[in-house]
Amino acid sequence: SQGFMTGSDLLIKRKSVVRITTGSQTLDELLGGGIETLCITEAFGEFRSGKTQLAHTLCVSTQLPLHMHGGNGKVAYIDTEGTFRPERIVPIAERFGMDANAVLDNIIYARAYTYEHQYNLLLGLAAKMAEEPFRLLIVDSVIALFRVDFSGRGELAERQQKLAQMLSRLTKIAEEFNVAVYITNQGVLSNLSCLFQERAPYIRGSQII
Amino acid sequence: SQGFMTGSDLLIKRKSVVRITTGSQTLDELLGGGIETLCITEAFGEFRSGKTQLAHTLCVSTQLPLHMHGGNGKVAYIDTEGTFRPERIVPIAERFGMDANAVLDNIIYARAYTYEHQYNLLLGLAAKMAEEPFRLLIVDSVIALFRVDFSGRGELAERQQKLAQMLSRLTKIAEEFNVAVYITNQGVLSNLSCLFQERAPYIRGSQII
Amino acid sequence: SQGFMTGSDLLIKRKSVVRITTGSQTLDELLGGGIETLCITEAFGEFRSGKTQLAHTLCVSTQLPLHMHGGNGKVAYIDTEGTFRPERIVPIAERFGMDANAVLDNIIYARAYTYEHQYNLLLGLAAKMAEEPFRLLIVDSVIALFRVDFSGRGELAERQQKLAQMLSRLTKIAEEFNVAVYITNQGVLSNLSCLFQERAPYIRGSQII
Amino acid sequence: SQGFMTGSDLLIKRKSVVRITTGSQTLDELLGGGIETLCITEAFGEFRSGKTQLAHTLCVSTQLPLHMHGGNGKVAYIDTEGTFRPERIVPIAERFGMDANAVLDNIIYARAYTYEHQYNLLLGLAAKMAEEPFRLLIVDSVIALFRVDFSGRGELAERQQKLAQMLSRLTKIAEEFNVAVYITNQGVLSNLSCLFQERAPYIRGSQII
Amino acid sequence: SQGFMTGSDLLIKRKSVVRITTGSQTLDELLGGGIETLCITEAFGEFRSGKTQLAHTLCVSTQLPLHMHGGNGKVAYIDTEGTFRPERIVPIAERFGMDANAVLDNIIYARAYTYEHQYNLLLGLAAKMAEEPFRLLIVDSVIALFRVDFSGRGELAERQQKLAQMLSRLTKIAEEFNVAVYITNQGVLSNLSCLFQERAPYIRGSQII
Amino acid sequence: SQGFMTGSDLLIKRKSVVRITTGSQTLDELLGGGIETLCITEAFGEFRSGKTQLAHTLCVSTQLPLHMHGGNGKVAYIDTEGTFRPERIVPIAERFGMDANAVLDNIIYARAYTYEHQYNLLLGLAAKMAEEPFRLLIVDSVIALFRVDFSGRGELAERQQKLAQMLSRLTKIAEEFNVAVYITNQGVLSNLSCLFQERAPYIRGSQII
Amino acid sequence: SQGFMTGSDLLIKRKSVVRITTGSQTLDELLGGGIETLCITEAFGEFRSGKTQLAHTLCVSTQLPLHMHGGNGKVAYIDTEGTFRPERIVPIAERFGMDANAVLDNIIYARAYTYEHQYNLLLGLAAKMAEEPFRLLIVDSVIALFRVDFSGRGELAERQQKLAQMLSRLTKIAEEFNVAVYITNQGVLSNLSCLFQERAPYIRGSQII
Amino acid sequence: SQGFMTGSDLLIKRKSVVRITTGSQTLDELLGGGIETLCITEAFGEFRSGKTQLAHTLCVSTQLPLHMHGGNGKVAYIDTEGTFRPERIVPIAERFGMDANAVLDNIIYARAYTYEHQYNLLLGLAAKMAEEPFRLLIVDSVIALFRVDFSGRGELAERQQKLAQMLSRLTKIAEEFNVAVYITNQGVLSNLSCLFQERAPYIRGSQII
Repeated sequence: SQGFMTGSDLLIKRKSVVRITTGSQTLDELLGGGIETLCITEAFGEFRSGKTQLAHTLCVSTQLPLHMHGGNGKVAYIDTEGTFRPERIVPIAERFGMDANAVLDNIIYARAYTYEHQYNLLLGLAAKMAEEPFRLLIVDSVIALFRVDFSGRGELAERQQKLAQMLSRLTKIAEEFNVAVYITNQGVLSNLSCLFQERAPYIRGSQII
Repeated sequence: SQGFMTGSDLLIKRKSVVRITTGSQTLDELLGGGIETLCITEAFGEFRSGKTQLAHTLCVSTQLPLHMHGGNGKVAYIDTEGTFRPERIVPIAERFGMDANAVLDNIIYARAYTYEHQYNLLLGLAAKMAEEPFRLLIVDSVIALFRVDFSGRGELAERQQKLAQMLSRLTKIAEEFNVAVYITNQGVLSNLSCLFQERAPYIRGSQII
Repeated sequence: SQGFMTGSDLLIKRKSVVRITTGSQTLDELLGGGIETLCITEAFGEFRSGKTQLAHTLCVSTQLPLHMHGGNGKVAYIDTEGTFRPERIVPIAERFGMDANAVLDNIIYARAYTYEHQYNLLLGLAAKMAEEPFRLLIVDSVIALFRVDFSGRGELAERQQKLAQMLSRLTKIAEEFNVAVYITNQGVLSNLSCLFQERAPYIRGSQII
Repeated sequence: SQGFMTGSDLLIKRKSVVRITTGSQTLDELLGGGIETLCITEAFGEFRSGKTQLAHTLCVSTQLPLHMHGGNGKVAYIDTEGTFRPERIVPIAERFGMDANAVLDNIIYARAYTYEHQYNLLLGLAAKMAEEPFRLLIVDSVIALFRVDFSGRGELAERQQKLAQMLSRLTKIAEEFNVAVYITNQGVLSNLSCLFQERAPYIRGSQII
Repeated sequence: SQGFMTGSDLLIKRKSVVRITTGSQTLDELLGGGIETLCITEAFGEFRSGKTQLAHTLCVSTQLPLHMHGGNGKVAYIDTEGTFRPERIVPIAERFGMDANAVLDNIIYARAYTYEHQYNLLLGLAAKMAEEPFRLLIVDSVIALFRVDFSGRGELAERQQKLAQMLSRLTKIAEEFNVAVYITNQGVLSNLSCLFQERAPYIRGSQII
Repeated sequence: SQGFMTGSDLLIKRKSVVRITTGSQTLDELLGGGIETLCITEAFGEFRSGKTQLAHTLCVSTQLPLHMHGGNGKVAYIDTEGTFRPERIVPIAERFGMDANAVLDNIIYARAYTYEHQYNLLLGLAAKMAEEPFRLLIVDSVIALFRVDFSGRGELAERQQKLAQMLSRLTKIAEEFNVAVYITNQGVLSNLSCLFQERAPYIRGSQII
Repeated sequence: SQGFMTGSDLLIKRKSVVRITTGSQTLDELLGGGIETLCITEAFGEFRSGKTQLAHTLCVSTQLPLHMHGGNGKVAYIDTEGTFRPERIVPIAERFGMDANAVLDNIIYARAYTYEHQYNLLLGLAAKMAEEPFRLLIVDSVIALFRVDFSGRGELAERQQKLAQMLSRLTKIAEEFNVAVYITNQGVLSNLSCLFQERAPYIRGSQII
Repeated sequence: SQGFMTGSDLLIKRKSVVRITTGSQTLDELLGGGIETLCITEAFGEFRSGKTQLAHTLCVSTQLPLHMHGGNGKVAYIDTEGTFRPERIVPIAERFGMDANAVLDNIIYARAYTYEHQYNLLLGLAAKMAEEPFRLLIVDSVIALFRVDFSGRGELAERQQKLAQMLSRLTKIAEEFNVAVYITNQGVLSNLSCLFQERAPYIRGSQII
């Protein structure tokens, strides 16, 4: 993907895009049918504003068949703040008429403690995604560990660099494995989050390939 | 816990979560049944705002049997400001219909004078928790010693690093021994406490594993 | 072009200028007939303010014959934010009564991930443009990658230098191959964009040779 | 006191706490019966706001028998600003029905000129307290010499470190010899005193062991 | 010109001054008959405020015979922003009743890309002016390339030095070849332009020898 | 005086305190009978606010016999601003019914030009005070020379250190020779005087031994 | 002039002072008869506020005989901004009834391009003034070149030093050759001009010897 | 004068103080009879506020016999700004009924160009004053040269040091030769003058020995 391709080739590639329902018809319409694969979708907002709830729903809806607006694929969940609750998956699965145990078996979960851990988890995902059909990667939240590990002011530049590296890695995953990447950001008004805030308000989708 | 596990495995782990009553039905409901093990629960607020009072109550309620919304376990208390009063335990135990002497015997207490002392006490707890069934660790307050030991402005970054290390240690204790960690923070509006303030207002629970 | 030429020679060169319709009669009139070759046309504005929509339209109109206010040429599209959608090209082509597949075949597209990648793509374009009749180069957006890669304050000067280099390269392309260069800029009120903002508001055209 | 003890052991230790009357029933009630041994009690306030007056009263009341809300012990007085007046002791002793000469004989007094002098006096007190039953240590004021000796802004960190060392020493004295420590602070709104001001307003007691 | 001359000698030199009409009687009167040779005339103002339009007019009027308020000479045009349009010369020439082709042949034009390029073009002009009768040098704009090349704050001093060098070069050209120098400046309120703004508002003429 | 003494011993020492009348009954009452020996009394206030007038009066009243509220002793006067006027002593002496010549003979006076000179004068006083019965030392003003000699901002810390040294020396003189020390300070709102201003408003007495 | 002289000697020297008319009776009165030799007269004011006009007038009036309020001497004119116009001298000379050619012959003129050039011109003037009877030296403006050559903020101190050197040189010229020095300053509110602005408002005369 | 003297000795010395009339009865009264010898009298105020006028008057009145409120002595005048005018002495002398020539002969005058020159002139005065009966030294203004020579911000400390040295020298002259020292200060609100402004408003006298 380093050089040019024709618009026709790109159109073919774009044909493989899958849109995964958020469970909300309104939000699906705003997003053009759901969150897209080949794309990073970012959710902003204050604490407990529904971002993590959406993450739980997507864990299930991604596993729906395509005709039910799902992705027919597995889910990887990286949790930096300990907010994932597998028990919440059960009623969502039931609401979608799916077997909760099977749904939970198709979610792989990891708790990240440092930004390096978070980055290594992303590197490790490549192997897994090469073997099995994943359609969603959740990072909730993408930014929390950066705040802890790079809290000194003089380290802002390094933090930004690391964050850009992390986002680049997420982009490549979305592109290589045709997965949707869903990241959350608590929307605290710090310098760190400006990268996101100036790109789009609240929920947005940006095509990658 | 460095890699991924399935959601099913996580659900099994989550089944062992114990919720310990705060003695207040309203607060229990807000917290989803009480403070959770596998989790750090943090109490904010001004001086004498009830944080330490809750700590005393949890010392007792943790020892209640599970069916009485207790944790059926022992308590470790690290006191950085000299606010623990064993004599206050007695009437609380009596209110819960427990033997005060037995309750006091099941509390281990240490006064920390420096942040290093505080950290070493946490390291020492692992051995104790491996041997006996602890369900609660109190650090009251988690931040006071940092304020004294790192009062220079240039030392803010170091302080943040040490604080992150302390929180990481608390997280691992909660996870390894299935204990609830209860920490207090006087809520002084300093830079030091922003780490907490931006995470959640007042009382919150965050799952760890 | 390092030395002087007479005004007469310049007039002959200017005779080869092509103006490409924006699809909007009003905007064409404001621009003096459309966006000009030998020129960099820049579009400012907030997110989703139509800049990318115009880019999609120009991808098609550039391929119109000259008598239909097109450029009778091919299009190169460098996408830094993943906003190009080939599927949007189809209805635009149909609106202009053109074969969408042929239109897409005449667009070459590349996604740039870093400013160096973006610069190398520009270098690579020279070879392509020497062989085939291109009339439009789109860079959407010209500045996004600079924001990510040079986010430290101390790096502002370096960023400006690189940006000037990029603009110089775009100028030379416009001049050498008689193409229109269309660049977008989200118009975020940062220091980075002042270079543009002080030159002209919103849409402007500046002759190059 | 470096490790943990049980709450029962701590309760036994707390049983030895003595509360010394301030001579004011209202203030005694606010303090839970008077100033406590095993504890540092700090008095804030503007110049001539009664802090030193209370210090004089405590010199006498500490020598009262326990049943009269005294401490039945001797008093050590470290004076950094030259505000102690033995002649004021006489009428207070008489008011409490005690022999003024005996009371004065049971007060040991030292004037401190530098913070090092102040610290050395504290070190020297250990020997005296090991031999005789002291129940009160007054430092009036604890902070004045720090203000003189560390007046440069760049020396704030060193000053804070020394102050923490001083407070740690006072804590250990209170704990080792079961004495009440009464310190005063003029409450000038300088950076130096923030350590105290954020801990408690005006008069407060904090248990040490 | 390093030493003194008498006022009489200066008066003789001043007799060779030519005033070139701006095409506007009012402006000519304000300028004392038009822009003067031996002089730098500077035009301030916002984007598209007529500065470049005046430059185009002067390209033609300089070629008028002296009795028609022209300079009977050739024109050199250095264009840093790509705003010169030879096609605009045609109607102006016609309005003055001159042959447009001849007029264009008597204009030499160069596009400058960097401040060094701009400076070298000035150096190269000396040879041309020694051979042929030039009466006007236009630099439009004199300052744009400085803004791009010296955008770092720390480089302000260097930028000022280079700008002074450029102005000194323009002064010497005006003096040596008895030409009028017309420079434009967009009047952006930056530090860079203060040199000019404090000298005179909008249009001014300053004698050089 | 490095160690502890009993309150009884201190009371005996305090019995030697002499209070010298200020000539004003009101002020004497405010000060508890006059300015005390063993004590530094400091006078604040704007220029010509009576501080120097009081100094002149004390020069005389100190020589009064004890039963007339004098100190029955000699006076040392260090003058840093040239404000002492021996001729003013004459009418004051007459008002107190004393022989003006004798009074003047019992005043030793020195003009200090630098802070080092001022400090050396204090050192030299010890010898004189050891031989003759002095009861008053005036330094008018204690701070003026510091302002001149340490006027650089970076020298604030050094100035504070020297000032503390000066005050320490004054304290020792008061203690060793049982003299009253009267110092003045113009009360200019500079950083330099904050040391004093926070200690007491206007006139205050602080016991030394 | 390094040592003392008596007031009588100074009075004799002052007797040689010549006052040169400004052509305006009002201004002459304000200045005490005109601008004085042995003196630097400085004219402040905004652009085109008459300062240069006055300079032109003084070029002529200095050449008037003494009884017509002239200086009966020659004029040196240092021009830093190219504002001198010999053709303006002609009508002024005629107004004073003088031969314009002779007047122009008695003016020596130099254009200064840098502050060093300006300083060297002053040095060179000494030789000329030693030979011929000069009564006026004009520097218009004295400060413009300093603004260009020392535009960096860090160079302010160096600029001030050079400016003081320049003023000192002007002072010596006024004194040695009994000439009036007339300098202009555009009165821009920069730091550079504070030296002048605090000395006197608008026009002032200060005696030199 | 390095050590102590008795008040009696000082009184004798003070008896030699001479007060020189200012020519204004009101001002004489404010100053206690005129400006005093053994003293530095400082005049503040804006430009042309009468400070220099008073200096001229004192040049004459100092020469009056003692019974006419003069000093019966000669005058030294150091002029840093060229404001002394011997011709103004004449009418003042006549007003006081004195021979103007004799008065001018008794004034020694020097123009100072740098602070070093100013300081050296003071050093040189000692020899003159040892030989002849001087009663007045004028420095008009004492501070102007410091402003020019030490204009850099970093040089403030050095400037203050030099200024203190200058004032010390003036003090010693006043003391050694029993002369009045009259200094002026334009009262510009700069940091430089704060030394004076905080000492006294407008006109003040401070005894020196």
